[in-house]
Amino acid sequence: MFTLSFTYGHALFHSLVVSFFFSSYLLTVLILMVSYSEALQIIMSEILTELPMERVPLVLSLGRRLAEGIVAEENIPALPNSAMDGYAVQWHDTSGASETDPLRLRVIGESSAGEPFHEVVGSGQAVRIMTGGILPKGADAVIEVESTEEEGEFVVVKREIGLGTAVRSPGEDIRAGEEIIPAGKRLEPGDIGILASLGITNVPVRVKPKVGIIATGNEVIDPHRKPEVGQIRNSGGPALFAACVQAGAEPIDLGIVGDDREELLDALETGLQYDILLTTGGVSAGRYDLVQHLLPELGVEIRFHKVNIRPGKPVLFGVLKEGDRKTLAFGLPGNPVSSLVTFLTFVVPILEKMLGGTYRPNSLQARSEETILKNDAKRHFLRGILSYKDGEPYVRRTGTQSSGAMSSMSRANCLILFEEEKNRIASGDLVEVYLLSSTS
Amino acid sequence: MFTLSFTYGHALFHSLVVSFFFSSYLLTVLILMVSYSEALQIIMSEILTELPMERVPLVLSLGRRLAEGIVAEENIPALPNSAMDGYAVQWHDTSGASETDPLRLRVIGESSAGEPFHEVVGSGQAVRIMTGGILPKGADAVIEVESTEEEGEFVVVKREIGLGTAVRSPGEDIRAGEEIIPAGKRLEPGDIGILASLGITNVPVRVKPKVGIIATGNEVIDPHRKPEVGQIRNSGGPALFAACVQAGAEPIDLGIVGDDREELLDALETGLQYDILLTTGGVSAGRYDLVQHLLPELGVEIRFHKVNIRPGKPVLFGVLKEGDRKTLAFGLPGNPVSSLVTFLTFVVPILEKMLGGTYRPNSLQARSEETILKNDAKRHFLRGILSYKDGEPYVRRTGTQSSGAMSSMSRANCLILFEEEKNRIASGDLVEVYLLSSTS
Repeated sequence: MFTLSFTYGHALFHSLVVSFFFSSYLLTVLILMVSYSEALQIIMSEILTELPMERVPLVLSLGRRLAEGIVAEENIPALPNSAMDGYAVQWHDTSGASETDPLRLRVIGESSAGEPFHEVVGSGQAVRIMTGGILPKGADAVIEVESTEEEGEFVVVKREIGLGTAVRSPGEDIRAGEEIIPAGKRLEPGDIGILASLGITNVPVRVKPKVGIIATGNEVIDPHRKPEVGQIRNSGGPALFAACVQAGAEPIDLGIVGDDREELLDALETGLQYDILLTTGGVSAGRYDLVQHLLPELGVEIRFHKVNIRPGKPVLFGVLKEGDRKTLAFGLPGNPVSSLVTFLTFVVPILEKMLGGTYRPNSLQARSEETILKNDAKRHFLRGILSYKDGEPYVRRTGTQSSGAMSSMSRANCLILFEEEKNRIASGDLVEVYLLSSTS
Repeated sequence: MFTLSFTYGHALFHSLVVSFFFSSYLLTVLILMVSYSEALQIIMSEILTELPMERVPLVLSLGRRLAEGIVAEENIPALPNSAMDGYAVQWHDTSGASETDPLRLRVIGESSAGEPFHEVVGSGQAVRIMTGGILPKGADAVIEVESTEEEGEFVVVKREIGLGTAVRSPGEDIRAGEEIIPAGKRLEPGDIGILASLGITNVPVRVKPKVGIIATGNEVIDPHRKPEVGQIRNSGGPALFAACVQAGAEPIDLGIVGDDREELLDALETGLQYDILLTTGGVSAGRYDLVQHLLPELGVEIRFHKVNIRPGKPVLFGVLKEGDRKTLAFGLPGNPVSSLVTFLTFVVPILEKMLGGTYRPNSLQARSEETILKNDAKRHFLRGILSYKDGEPYVRRTGTQSSGAMSSMSRANCLILFEEEKNRIASGDLVEVYLLSSTS
């Protein structure tokens, strides 16, 4: 915490000096420029109202975050059963059996999955058993069908087996009382299988955080419209909407708002009712960049504005507290690439925290396929293409790294981290990359 | 193709010999035991009816596979515009400018995003410009606001810039005529942004392949029911349902069918109307394993039965041809782990192919954290946990590898490949792993 306060102070001092030069652009907000790690720390240190739990039908729980740990109430399997098709026997009866010197046991019945055999298996006896069939009393092992042959009332056993061979013990998969899926886990098909086997058909998951999205700018028009000179279609809004869905949140599209004070105030007020508010545009030093001025008027405390990164430098973060509840407000840059990169690097981590997951970036080291230079002291997040050659990870840039180039984001499957203090990545160097999604 | 035919012949010979011993269990179907690579090759060599295209609204296209390549009809940006907030100028006017020796230019207007400046910028003049603002005629560079100061009608310029500084050229992001997203790509947020910027609000995607799922077995009951002795809840069905959703298919739950010939024939006939039919259970050597006998009665040609893998050995694959259309039928094992592993290793690749994607398993090399032994010549797919330590991938098993243990599937985020010919993986060895999903 000391580090954080110190940094704050430092940033504040820096910004006071700097703001002297920019006073015409900085009417009410001080620039609180921080580093990436400081920014992330500030965001993640927010203590949030816990999102409530809801129950959803099993088939709809895929990809949701579990709200409470699942503790098994029963052993699975409940009773010892057979792992194979074969014959339930007393293991010592097979002693010495081989292909050339087989043994014979009398088949006294059958235990299929669903129809157990209710008598006791004695020495010299066998019960035909199917995979999943309950092991009959008296039996202590199963000889697989492939090592046997049936001859009338007898089964010929061609192999010696040990105690417990091919028998699944009670609780071998899941033990009663054990926490079998931890709270916060994102449910995958294997989890759906477990929940089904435990009879949990209404699954307790965390309510999806609601994220209001506002695109700002006089030049921005709806994607279905034809742009006139100087107009551009809203691409950041739809991209963020999709990114929210992918991150397990519930996006609310609040549309496009021009650089009009009253209209924007209205939209921001609506957006601040949700768990998170995202705006795109309106946070640069430009004269029409209103978001940074209007958020404080609505009671939002600005925690930082501008981060020492590229793309995404003008990103703004603030908090609205109203009684028990909080809204986190992110002013993302207007460039669609910058808004998506800052969403991934700042918003996804806090969404994960709200959902009860433990955020750790899905990062790995890969070998750079090219030499990359930079001449500033910012942290760069380069759009990259990760590929595996003989199982070894390699990475290269997507091409143009212009923050206007949405195509670079489409081609990318990872972000390449280029640290503040570094100015050169040589071809063959190991670099850290953050995976964006499953590559295929 | 020669290899394939040869392998077929070899497998057939082998199965004829083997079937001599198992004749009591093998009434109508020969065992066509193949290796994993052979099995995959047989599946992937099926020439399929192409799935039709459908158009979905932009917001619903996330995660869908693009049915046709997207070719840009316009340049993005359409006109040269500013990458920063600053002043549009003639670059040579800044020649020699510095902090200590600044230059002054007359500000003659403003070009904001959405409101272009319509006059011409001459020498000695500047136009205030916002990020995204159209570069006015006459100007050929933008000096960023941070290197300037406004003084009445003038702007003080404190840095020399070059031709084209901070100017985005037309087509810099997307060039008209360029294929910007290829057919078959799974749409990610960045793609959604591109589609929006091109005005493509109804997106041509591949129709989801329909997959019928039947769980078989007298012992299997619906997950909401309480099992009696010898009964187990259907976990394989729901897990496969979820896995289909995750793989981009449309699952149809055809319920649970007991080991009753007529009932099963009915269900299989229904399932064979879809693009793919999955059954769980009923393909082992057990006496009640009916699926393998009934599929041929319905016209399905069995291409292989049993693969030299673990888990999942009894997997069966066949094809029903009816005029122009084909149904691929997979008889997956009854164990929920085996059914999920065989789904991932056999069904996902063909689903990807049907959707127009190019299947390449998401595999990488990781260092084993433990020594692992096996004593058979099967290919094993071990449930593993992949983690990164300082960006380097490590993998360990989830614990019990019993094919009944669904919990191993829930904890796993990858499958560890243990090849046929190997019997030992030493701690520290590099092994190949297949990623199951994003780890978090």
